Amino acid sequence: MEVRSQKMVIQLYDTTLRDGTQREGISLSVNDKLKIVRKLDELGVHYVEGGWPGSNPKDAEFFARVKGIQLEQAVITAFGSTRRADVLVQDDPNIRALLEAETRAVAIFGKSWDLHVIQVLGTTLEENLEMIADSVSYLKGRGREVIYDAEHFFDGYKADPAYALRTLQMAERAGAECLVLCDTNGGTLPSQLVAIIEEMKKVTSTPLGIHAHNDGDLAVANSLAAVQAGVVHVQGTINGYGERCGNANLCSIIPNLKLKLGHDCISDEQLRQLSSVSRYVSELANLAHDAHLPYVGHSAFAHKGGMHVNALVKCEESYQHVDPALVGNHKRVVVSELSGKSNIAYKIEEFGLDLSISPEQARQALQQIKDLENRGFQFEGAEASLELLIRRTQPGYEPPFELIDFHVLVERRQGRGMLAEVAIKVRVGDEVTHTAAEGNGPVNALDLAVRKALLPFYPQLTEIHLTDYKVRILDSEAGTAAQVRVLIDSTWRSRTWSTVGSSTNIIEASWQALADSLEYGLLNGLGVCNP
Amino acid sequence: MEVRSQKMVIQLYDTTLRDGTQREGISLSVNDKLKIVRKLDELGVHYVEGGWPGSNPKDAEFFARVKGIQLEQAVITAFGSTRRADVLVQDDPNIRALLEAETRAVAIFGKSWDLHVIQVLGTTLEENLEMIADSVSYLKGRGREVIYDAEHFFDGYKADPAYALRTLQMAERAGAECLVLCDTNGGTLPSQLVAIIEEMKKVTSTPLGIHAHNDGDLAVANSLAAVQAGVVHVQGTINGYGERCGNANLCSIIPNLKLKLGHDCISDEQLRQLSSVSRYVSELANLAHDAHLPYVGHSAFAHKGGMHVNALVKCEESYQHVDPALVGNHKRVVVSELSGKSNIAYKIEEFGLDLSISPEQARQALQQIKDLENRGFQFEGAEASLELLIRRTQPGYEPPFELIDFHVLVERRQGRGMLAEVAIKVRVGDEVTHTAAEGNGPVNALDLAVRKALLPFYPQLTEIHLTDYKVRILDSEAGTAAQVRVLIDSTWRSRTWSTVGSSTNIIEASWQALADSLEYGLLNGLGVCNP
Repeated sequence: MEVRSQKMVIQLYDTTLRDGTQREGISLSVNDKLKIVRKLDELGVHYVEGGWPGSNPKDAEFFARVKGIQLEQAVITAFGSTRRADVLVQDDPNIRALLEAETRAVAIFGKSWDLHVIQVLGTTLEENLEMIADSVSYLKGRGREVIYDAEHFFDGYKADPAYALRTLQMAERAGAECLVLCDTNGGTLPSQLVAIIEEMKKVTSTPLGIHAHNDGDLAVANSLAAVQAGVVHVQGTINGYGERCGNANLCSIIPNLKLKLGHDCISDEQLRQLSSVSRYVSELANLAHDAHLPYVGHSAFAHKGGMHVNALVKCEESYQHVDPALVGNHKRVVVSELSGKSNIAYKIEEFGLDLSISPEQARQALQQIKDLENRGFQFEGAEASLELLIRRTQPGYEPPFELIDFHVLVERRQGRGMLAEVAIKVRVGDEVTHTAAEGNGPVNALDLAVRKALLPFYPQLTEIHLTDYKVRILDSEAGTAAQVRVLIDSTWRSRTWSTVGSSTNIIEASWQALADSLEYGLLNGLGVCNP
Repeated sequence: MEVRSQKMVIQLYDTTLRDGTQREGISLSVNDKLKIVRKLDELGVHYVEGGWPGSNPKDAEFFARVKGIQLEQAVITAFGSTRRADVLVQDDPNIRALLEAETRAVAIFGKSWDLHVIQVLGTTLEENLEMIADSVSYLKGRGREVIYDAEHFFDGYKADPAYALRTLQMAERAGAECLVLCDTNGGTLPSQLVAIIEEMKKVTSTPLGIHAHNDGDLAVANSLAAVQAGVVHVQGTINGYGERCGNANLCSIIPNLKLKLGHDCISDEQLRQLSSVSRYVSELANLAHDAHLPYVGHSAFAHKGGMHVNALVKCEESYQHVDPALVGNHKRVVVSELSGKSNIAYKIEEFGLDLSISPEQARQALQQIKDLENRGFQFEGAEASLELLIRRTQPGYEPPFELIDFHVLVERRQGRGMLAEVAIKVRVGDEVTHTAAEGNGPVNALDLAVRKALLPFYPQLTEIHLTDYKVRILDSEAGTAAQVRVLIDSTWRSRTWSTVGSSTNIIEASWQALADSLEYGLLNGLGVCNP
């Protein structure tokens, strides 16, 4: 199928540091922001919107410090609004802050929607036009490249097309380098959006941009449709972070532009960094990376259905729309009770294990996986436990520690809070350690106690952190007698691994996942600074 | 802006229970599936694909049990593949299982892509055509409504348009009621998809359907574009659950169809249940509900930016693309949440409680709800706990029992299994009972112990059963020190009620939910044969 659009160079404009931080729960330090700037520059993004210097001192500090960073190509951009109503542009503190940021480019937004001009700004339609013209030409006169963001452009056009168009023409005549049409409320459909862009192309000659939000689950589609309609500048954020349902996701837009539409924007080599940039930003934003993100998610190329895995072995493209390596991701075959022996061999290679497994050992490992899955374990999400299971099939396997016993006491006495205490006995080599700890719950106490017992032997455990603890009730109809599955994620530096346990007793299930997480770390030399 | 498509009735086809469960980490019990069927029926979905009876015994059990459920309109559909190569259709075990499911409708998928026919199935292009024709006509001959899923249709068409078309025509001539074009690998762009649908409309007269995956972040856009191109049947899943990056999200498609394109599919009243259905399904799938989901997410109408909040006060539509009430969601202002005292009065009426509450008591109840929700409780899914909270604001409230203390011991000794034992002391009236019990885990032991203590006073408790016990980790990044929420469902005859507890200590959280569940039952005279 031929895609009907000319190949073009598309400008990528990242607003993760400004609009992205409007997402509930995100707050980036100035240091985090500077780190992300470097990553975005490496990725090949053309503009990086750093923040709104007029709105808060943190953003002003960012602009002061970002000047010291050598960048390959990214143009740092300061964001702000048009001047206030009834104020001289040179006296407007927001405009002054924009200049003080000393960036080569500035983005300013103005109102396109009559409802906003009258009800929100409380000014007149004419004054709003003057505000746009004044602000653009003043910043142009001070040598800035001006990107004009037409806020609510599509909603404004739906309400009063003639007025929306006039606002855009004011910015164009005042010298804006790019007119960015914003779907600020995110509710416009691609068909409406394209029809409006077609109208705009008839009456403006300045390059057009698109800024989409995801309230209709259409932000990526709207951005691509805009490009297919002739727009050359695309705004978005890494991982689609943003207020409400997020902004257009650059991690989906970039590969769609390059791999599906054939437009030039970043190099092939840069595209291969995409998954790593996506994870890096989520890391700094302190958000779990969404496994199901298109192209860059951990599960984006994970195959679970037995039939699909079978087909993939025969032909890679049978259930993959692109080669995952192009975006720095990789295929995963999820091992479950439906797997064959070839999955085990596949996994040994994937884990990079230096061991040979006989067909008989593979059969045993598989049988053990099936037995454990019957008892509620699940290795799909717990590949470290799977690796240990395979290693333990090897004759002469020596675990780094061994549990002898533990007991857990949880007590509630009237007038006192809850108490959770654990006593534990473990063996390392020939030495047996018996110790105890308290925690804010029984599992926390167990975690603290086992670490206390092992630390004298393995000081590197202080570097290994438990970052995620999940509990799932398997047969919840069994009430409090139900089978429980526990999944634990652990990290050391940028390395993350997952382990599993299962039992009707949540303490036992937690113990299994916890012990595997530590055993895996110790066996793989993690936590040691120079391994 | 006029949207250029005729208003039509669109058939909604849900495959959460089949394709949705291909998502890594989802596994639904038969009971969960039956509960979801009821919810989807209430929502007004036209077809519910229940599973693949030929692929596993759990799905076969589902079809046996779902027959006993009275549904308003949803047609339960069994899914399977066309017959195998070189097998008589009546001898194919998969086709037989489809018939044994005894559903009014069946969906069968066949191959459209020559690459799959040859490399994956390992058969000839001609035999594949026969497989499609045989399977459709055989199932039609047995009185089934046949929905034909053309797997990989768009990829197949890109590779060999004539062959892809022939597969579709085989299904059409054999009598399929609907031809569903599947973007199985999820990599097709809306522009390509529409162009191919336009071609198909020229050569087929059977109603067309769309089944999209989200690998290009375009599943919702593709589904809408297909409808705008004349497709009348849309497949998807609740919350977009599905393999890799998920299936097309019905929770986005339905409101876009109704509110943006004006197509009829479910009633306005049903649309107002959308957010609650979305949360219900995520609850049963034991996945955290994604706050940023369009329309139905907790943050979909949450406003953080100071400027936006300011504008919203002046004008509701300034930063919202639709009224959140239309989809059963609500606006949230992230900084200062305002809740009304009238909510409490509303609940008292809803619960049918015979009590009057003073404005001051309502304020106190509200404050307590906010405090508890801050500590991880959630009353949306636990109305019995909410009723108790309101009752306890009344002067002179007498609880049916009172906990004095308990302790829990969990022990693991080498060579013996796990031990879980609870000792408990409770007061009923003036009498104190001190007793103990063992269980298969600490929560089970606690459940058994409290019942043992209360049974002499309240024999009706033998009739009250705990039917569901769920655990959710709230701040999983805190590892084993995380806050835990426990939800318990209890039943007596056809009556079901839900209670909640929350603590960093899972035993304490379980105790709270357990105690509420018994207290609610006793106060409402449940478990007594002639109350």
